[in-house]
Amino acid sequence: MPDIGAAIIGTGFIGSVHLNTLRRMGVPVAGVLGSSPGRGVERAKALGVPRAYASLEELLADPAVQVVHVTSPNVAHYPQVKQILGAAKHVVCEKPLAMTSAQSAEMLALARASGKIAAVCYNTRFYALNQHAHGMMAAKELGDLRLITGQFHQDWLAKDTDWNWRLEAEEGGPLRSVSDIGTHWVDLTSFITGQRPVAVMAELATFIPDRQMPLGPVQTFTTAKGATETRRITTDDAATILLRYKDGGRGVLTTSQISHGRKGLLTWDISGSRASAAWSAEAPENLWIGHRDAPNQILLRDPSLMNPYGAAAAALPGGHPEGFADTWTAFFGQVYRDVARGGRGADSTWASFDDGHAEMLFCDAVLDSAARGAWVDIAKGGL
Amino acid sequence: MPDIGAAIIGTGFIGSVHLNTLRRMGVPVAGVLGSSPGRGVERAKALGVPRAYASLEELLADPAVQVVHVTSPNVAHYPQVKQILGAAKHVVCEKPLAMTSAQSAEMLALARASGKIAAVCYNTRFYALNQHAHGMMAAKELGDLRLITGQFHQDWLAKDTDWNWRLEAEEGGPLRSVSDIGTHWVDLTSFITGQRPVAVMAELATFIPDRQMPLGPVQTFTTAKGATETRRITTDDAATILLRYKDGGRGVLTTSQISHGRKGLLTWDISGSRASAAWSAEAPENLWIGHRDAPNQILLRDPSLMNPYGAAAAALPGGHPEGFADTWTAFFGQVYRDVARGGRGADSTWASFDDGHAEMLFCDAVLDSAARGAWVDIAKGGL
Amino acid sequence: MPDIGAAIIGTGFIGSVHLNTLRRMGVPVAGVLGSSPGRGVERAKALGVPRAYASLEELLADPAVQVVHVTSPNVAHYPQVKQILGAAKHVVCEKPLAMTSAQSAEMLALARASGKIAAVCYNTRFYALNQHAHGMMAAKELGDLRLITGQFHQDWLAKDTDWNWRLEAEEGGPLRSVSDIGTHWVDLTSFITGQRPVAVMAELATFIPDRQMPLGPVQTFTTAKGATETRRITTDDAATILLRYKDGGRGVLTTSQISHGRKGLLTWDISGSRASAAWSAEAPENLWIGHRDAPNQILLRDPSLMNPYGAAAAALPGGHPEGFADTWTAFFGQVYRDVARGGRGADSTWASFDDGHAEMLFCDAVLDSAARGAWVDIAKGGL
Amino acid sequence: MPDIGAAIIGTGFIGSVHLNTLRRMGVPVAGVLGSSPGRGVERAKALGVPRAYASLEELLADPAVQVVHVTSPNVAHYPQVKQILGAAKHVVCEKPLAMTSAQSAEMLALARASGKIAAVCYNTRFYALNQHAHGMMAAKELGDLRLITGQFHQDWLAKDTDWNWRLEAEEGGPLRSVSDIGTHWVDLTSFITGQRPVAVMAELATFIPDRQMPLGPVQTFTTAKGATETRRITTDDAATILLRYKDGGRGVLTTSQISHGRKGLLTWDISGSRASAAWSAEAPENLWIGHRDAPNQILLRDPSLMNPYGAAAAALPGGHPEGFADTWTAFFGQVYRDVARGGRGADSTWASFDDGHAEMLFCDAVLDSAARGAWVDIAKGGL
Repeated sequence: MPDIGAAIIGTGFIGSVHLNTLRRMGVPVAGVLGSSPGRGVERAKALGVPRAYASLEELLADPAVQVVHVTSPNVAHYPQVKQILGAAKHVVCEKPLAMTSAQSAEMLALARASGKIAAVCYNTRFYALNQHAHGMMAAKELGDLRLITGQFHQDWLAKDTDWNWRLEAEEGGPLRSVSDIGTHWVDLTSFITGQRPVAVMAELATFIPDRQMPLGPVQTFTTAKGATETRRITTDDAATILLRYKDGGRGVLTTSQISHGRKGLLTWDISGSRASAAWSAEAPENLWIGHRDAPNQILLRDPSLMNPYGAAAAALPGGHPEGFADTWTAFFGQVYRDVARGGRGADSTWASFDDGHAEMLFCDAVLDSAARGAWVDIAKGGL
Repeated sequence: MPDIGAAIIGTGFIGSVHLNTLRRMGVPVAGVLGSSPGRGVERAKALGVPRAYASLEELLADPAVQVVHVTSPNVAHYPQVKQILGAAKHVVCEKPLAMTSAQSAEMLALARASGKIAAVCYNTRFYALNQHAHGMMAAKELGDLRLITGQFHQDWLAKDTDWNWRLEAEEGGPLRSVSDIGTHWVDLTSFITGQRPVAVMAELATFIPDRQMPLGPVQTFTTAKGATETRRITTDDAATILLRYKDGGRGVLTTSQISHGRKGLLTWDISGSRASAAWSAEAPENLWIGHRDAPNQILLRDPSLMNPYGAAAAALPGGHPEGFADTWTAFFGQVYRDVARGGRGADSTWASFDDGHAEMLFCDAVLDSAARGAWVDIAKGGL
Repeated sequence: MPDIGAAIIGTGFIGSVHLNTLRRMGVPVAGVLGSSPGRGVERAKALGVPRAYASLEELLADPAVQVVHVTSPNVAHYPQVKQILGAAKHVVCEKPLAMTSAQSAEMLALARASGKIAAVCYNTRFYALNQHAHGMMAAKELGDLRLITGQFHQDWLAKDTDWNWRLEAEEGGPLRSVSDIGTHWVDLTSFITGQRPVAVMAELATFIPDRQMPLGPVQTFTTAKGATETRRITTDDAATILLRYKDGGRGVLTTSQISHGRKGLLTWDISGSRASAAWSAEAPENLWIGHRDAPNQILLRDPSLMNPYGAAAAALPGGHPEGFADTWTAFFGQVYRDVARGGRGADSTWASFDDGHAEMLFCDAVLDSAARGAWVDIAKGGL
Repeated sequence: MPDIGAAIIGTGFIGSVHLNTLRRMGVPVAGVLGSSPGRGVERAKALGVPRAYASLEELLADPAVQVVHVTSPNVAHYPQVKQILGAAKHVVCEKPLAMTSAQSAEMLALARASGKIAAVCYNTRFYALNQHAHGMMAAKELGDLRLITGQFHQDWLAKDTDWNWRLEAEEGGPLRSVSDIGTHWVDLTSFITGQRPVAVMAELATFIPDRQMPLGPVQTFTTAKGATETRRITTDDAATILLRYKDGGRGVLTTSQISHGRKGLLTWDISGSRASAAWSAEAPENLWIGHRDAPNQILLRDPSLMNPYGAAAAALPGGHPEGFADTWTAFFGQVYRDVARGGRGADSTWASFDDGHAEMLFCDAVLDSAARGAWVDIAKGGL
């Protein structure tokens, strides 16, 4: 991609994932924008990036930059993306897209009007076997969707001494496990099944209402040391959610950031009218395919055994395990191909701002349902 | 158990499980009662049992019988158990205990008044690692219950040509997947956690509303052949259920009899405040124990590594897999020991009529919740 | 089996397995013969068996006994089986069949001459999926045998304080891990593939040459307490073995009784010219079937999905796990059916004295090979 | 690494793996050398590399190049590496290091004399859990090595229509499965245990002696189409190998390129005197740790739970699966750090030319042993 350059807002864990992916693809990263100018300079040096911008304005003025990656805390997505699209740059934004659906609706409208590529980072779609499952469902190999169950469980916030900016509603929004990881599951399974849930019945739980906030800075996935103060937490440690799909399909999702021993257990299990399928992020190279009248199958990721969706997302032959980093290469590979050709390809499978907005509408419905203890229809966004 | 004799009502699949278990234990089985006198004679011969009773009265008059096992269709449990307890015999009844909670309340009262042993066949408790998990929770090794998720998925009714008496509400009751397999899960997890759910939010689904009923008889877990007629089905193929526990614990359960490839996938996954644990009936010899700050553990069933609950339920040393049949031996071993000593032991862990009645109250709440689309408190029975 | 009665020599762990299996089948067990008359009386009472014989002569004189089960230490098999066959009784003998191949050759000749049923307890054949795999190989579904690998690893003798009579060559024979568990693997895989190995290259290892022998008695699979004395051990803790099959097939087997954490890990993995298959006793309900140009398969034990060999050995429908105890029921079920009809059935799959003698010849070759560090042809016995 | 530039010899599958890794690390790749000048130009364009060298001389004359990566067929390693070291460049060479141990001995001597970094691409060491296991063995957490078993099984050459240059002894050397994948296992397990095998007893098998060679070019891991001619194959499709270690440790290894359904099943299983450990490349994020008197453990790759060796090799937090590509980043990260500082670090764990030469000596011993059917001592190289 010799003519397309990128810049990255945010220099934390996920910012470095974006950086490494772009490097692997050969996309030049012109610079980064840190949470403060000083932090930016420090991180640019550590990461080996040529430049630290002093401001978003400076970044957007850099002619070497055509695509801007937004990996800042959630609260910053809305103003930054508006400014980026206003400057006629392509944008790749971390999830969740915004703090509210009002914001994401506006961002979606701007993105549509701009004609620019506007992607949301639901990278989990790009495990090759998830792409393959999408192709299977599209081809009706599993028949109609009857039942889908799954979860996204982690343990990095299992103790009251664990801290992260996402814990506080002002930084991450009123939801936490649902918006941070639950929307990954909803996006992934909507992509695979070709259907978004239409109604939700949700229950939110904050098992650790008081946590120790460190007085110094904390990196995601690390444990704080030093002085702390007690903070009251209102965001959800976990959620239990029922889903309804059009045509009668039913679903269940649980999210948890307090499940000891689960580091990133995202699973889905689909019962279709003809066959079943299931996948787990802890064994992402295996797709289970279930049959009533024949032995079940385990498809080990292998381009020669997958459908075109799966094969396109696979970089390595079978027997050479792919992981989290490889999903980003497949994801950004599609995005930059589309940037290069000036529009989303018919075969593109990255999450658009439509998808990102739909997740915000899902979050709205979850909040409403949990508050009222009742089923709530999910507003229709795009798709 | 030389002085205690048994008789079995019902000669189908589960009846033969009872028979084989009693034989393995050395309990003499005096006779069986079939669905008709002719069927009884035929099955007694096939099973090698000395006698086929012509009626329940005849069975109850047999002095060789102290314990009566009830494995007839659900609709018969109530009248038969009343008669058995009325005749001052001990009773071991299949689940669900009754067709309604009004029936089970009366059965419970009778059982209490009788002073007889009255057990319900929630055998899954007796996988040794489930007993071990019960001991772990009792000892607070996992801390407080935060989140419990799980499922019981089968596929034997996945096709519209699959038929069984349980499909029809008149024979099996208004619920099917919930009462037939869901109550197994609720009973099991209540036993393990020491807590029954206190409220439920349920959704029921009948994905195959029209099925082909064979005009001849059908055995459980077999597929019909020959002429059929179409029957409208109202019982649930699947259910998605949220649960609340006292002290804030949350739960999720799905039941399904239409999930291709799942033959009997009962799983539970507990997130406690100190550690986690999970188990699957498809790999019943393994208990997963999850930790945040240490490697997770896999406890392979082994009496020398289990707590007293687990060790007591294990018949074989580690490395010699136990299965479904072995749970019955552990279960009936406790029951007959209690019959011999004239009362439930302090360390007994078999499901009582209190437990069986509690499951009926659970089913009531599920029906009510599903009908109203709202959270419903579960009435308190015993425990 | 109303007219056939049994007696059991030996009242330890495996003796009780025989007893429980016969009870489950409804075969009357007339009595037991203990290691001493006093021990016999004590154990008969504990096990609920009507009679303890004072001697083998007394046992053989009991007209209620048609089948004698031999579960005594290896050293006793030869004289006892000779006497049993001499008394024109059927015999079911534990493995290994004898201390030497000279003994087993004589036992085989006697068995043939007697016309009696003479079975050896290689029960592992009777996991239903092993029977299914036998059927698959017979039907050439995997093509020709190319490569077979596997192991039988345990840990119950991993420490120098672990003790059992098998450790001493005088009681168990010059081999230990090879004869006690290795022959299970060789018998099982010979049964599945339809081929015995024709040559062997073996290496024996005694990692714990000095062990603490308790001065009191020890039960198999238990750890001794109390006073001990140091004994020099010459039998193999582990063995590493290469195999050759006719037509060019190759194999590898390792045996170990000192592998921490492995309680009974018997595995086999067959690469055929058309497909592969693999199985593990730690997950005996799953058969892995490997394909080059299609997804691999996991066959979950289910009579409706298995070939006639597999289905015949399965007592329970899919979703109801079977284990070690169930293999014995399937095994003895065939044996007693053959006793009843007066000869081995064409479809019988239990290990005969031919098979038991072949294992002794295998052991001879292993000893010879290990001593010389060279390939040794295995003498042909029967089959 | 702003001041260090690389060039790559070879532009096939593994060449592109090197390229992508260097890009991800930010190492500039100045150019590639193809199998012919025309092929080089074509591949440089396809891969987005600035330059295709016409010859190795031209490559070595490029002042932008300090490190040369050798990914050509095995037969070319020796002359190319000699030339590279002669030009005072650092070298990263694919395995096996050479065609014969005479070559590798000379290469090792040259490398030592040069003072340059000279690494061999045994990347499997760099799965983080393999590094962790190395640390566990070094700290005696498993005690002394007793028994090690394992395999490397693939299926990409399972059919007689599969073709690759490695099949022909002239291109790949007299061994195939042993040298191509078996040495991966030997290198990996030598690294983990800290011990090289000292003697070997090997059996080689060529199950498919006649193969169809395509008349056009073939890429590794692909199936040929078009016209073919029959070629007689002498290299090993599979091998079965016994190993001896100093101090009495024993081992078993099987290699296979003809095992249907196994795409890259490299496994090892170590029984130590205190505990056990096992790992599989099909589930590289899990390390099994076995105990006799406590539950076994599953360590899910997580920097916060691993020792310094494991943590250093991990790029991502737990719950974010790493795979094949990530091993290369960890591997080259160490190599380029050592290039930058001018010598191998005390904590470096990449395979040196000593290790590469040792693998050639292992291959010599395998060939000799298989030819003679006898144990053969492995000559000592370096380490």
